[in-house]
Amino acid sequence: MYIICSDLEGVFVPEIWINVAQKTGIEELKLTTRDISDYDVLMKRRLSILDEHKLKLDDIQAVIKKIDPLDGAVEFLNWVRENYPIIIVSDTFVEFASPLMEKLGRPTLFCNSLIVDPDGSISGYTLRQKDGKKKVVQALKGLSYQVLAFGDSYNDITMLKEADASFLFRPPANVIEEFPEIQSTEDYRQLKEWIKDATA
Amino acid sequence: MYIICSDLEGVFVPEIWINVAQKTGIEELKLTTRDISDYDVLMKRRLSILDEHKLKLDDIQAVIKKIDPLDGAVEFLNWVRENYPIIIVSDTFVEFASPLMEKLGRPTLFCNSLIVDPDGSISGYTLRQKDGKKKVVQALKGLSYQVLAFGDSYNDITMLKEADASFLFRPPANVIEEFPEIQSTEDYRQLKEWIKDATA
Repeated sequence: MYIICSDLEGVFVPEIWINVAQKTGIEELKLTTRDISDYDVLMKRRLSILDEHKLKLDDIQAVIKKIDPLDGAVEFLNWVRENYPIIIVSDTFVEFASPLMEKLGRPTLFCNSLIVDPDGSISGYTLRQKDGKKKVVQALKGLSYQVLAFGDSYNDITMLKEADASFLFRPPANVIEEFPEIQSTEDYRQLKEWIKDATA
Repeated sequence: MYIICSDLEGVFVPEIWINVAQKTGIEELKLTTRDISDYDVLMKRRLSILDEHKLKLDDIQAVIKKIDPLDGAVEFLNWVRENYPIIIVSDTFVEFASPLMEKLGRPTLFCNSLIVDPDGSISGYTLRQKDGKKKVVQALKGLSYQVLAFGDSYNDITMLKEADASFLFRPPANVIEEFPEIQSTEDYRQLKEWIKDATA
C-alpha cells in the first residue's frame, strides 16, 4: 500500500515568507531555506526582523489570508487525494498554514508551532522534532506503507532520500545540480505520471 | 502538538457491512466486530458469503455509494480538521471506503486493501499490519505528537489504550461494560467539548 508525503510551500502554495516580504515591503524577509539551509538560523533572523518592525501574529496572518494556492495545485492535490492517502509535511507553523490549508480543502498537515506572547507578538517557535520530515517517512514505512515523496528544496532532501520513490518539484537550480539523482519536474502532469508509474 | 486518530464506521459513517446486508438482503453479512471480535475469522466468513451469492467488488461498491455519512458527522469532522490534524484509522478496505471518503471531504485514511481477481470477485484481503490501529498511535507519538483517539468498538480498544486521551463514541453496551475506564458519549457536541478540554 502506498502513501504520499509532500512539502507545502513551493509545491501547493507560494513561499509564505516571500509573500509576507512583498506585502510588507520588508526585503530581508525574502530569505528562505533556498538561501540559508540552517532553518534555526533563518527563523531566528525572521523573528527578530518581525520584532524590529513591530509586526505581530495578526499582521502576518492577515497577509497569509491573501495568498492563493499555485495554479493547478488544488486540481492536482484532489487527484492525489482520490487515489492515495497524503500527508503534507512542512517546516511552516500551524498558525500560518491554517488559512492556506482551508483553500486546499483541509488535507492533513504535519508541521511546527509558534510561541506567541499574550500581546500577540511571536517570541519563538517549537520544532515538533529535529529532522521531522525524514522521521515522518520512517514512521510511515514502519506502518507498512511504501512512501512516495516530493518537495522543492534543501529541507526536503532527507525526506526524499528516505522515501521509496522521490521527486523534486520546481526546485531552484542549485538543488538540481547538487542532487542530480532525484528526478525533477516543473509540471503537475509529469508528477502525476511519475506517481502513477511508481505505484503501478 | 496534538493529533487526532479516529475510527471510521460507527463514528462518521454507518457500518458498511450492515448496509450491504440490508441492501442485498443477506442477513448473515450483518455480523461485525461487535459480534465476532477476531477480524480474520469475520472477514473470511464475509468473503465466503459473497462468493456463495456471486457478488463481486462492483456490486458491493454500488451499494456503498448509496451510504451517507451519519447525521452531523461532516460538520463535526470539519470542525476537527480546522483545529487539528486527523487521521482516520479503519479496518475497512480502500476499495470500499473511497466513495465514503469523498462524502467526508477526503480526510486522510489509513486502512487495508482487498485482493481482487481479474473477473472482479474478491478473493482475499491484505491487512497493512497486525494491530494496525495501535501502531498508528505509536508512530504518531514517535513523531512527538500527543494523540487523542476515539472509536466505537472492540477493534478500537488497543488504539484507545495507547493514546494520550481516548473516548468511546456510540459503543455497544457490552463495550461500555467491559471498558468503564474509557469515557463514552453518543453526542458529537460532547466529543467536541472533551477534545477541547484535552487540548486546552
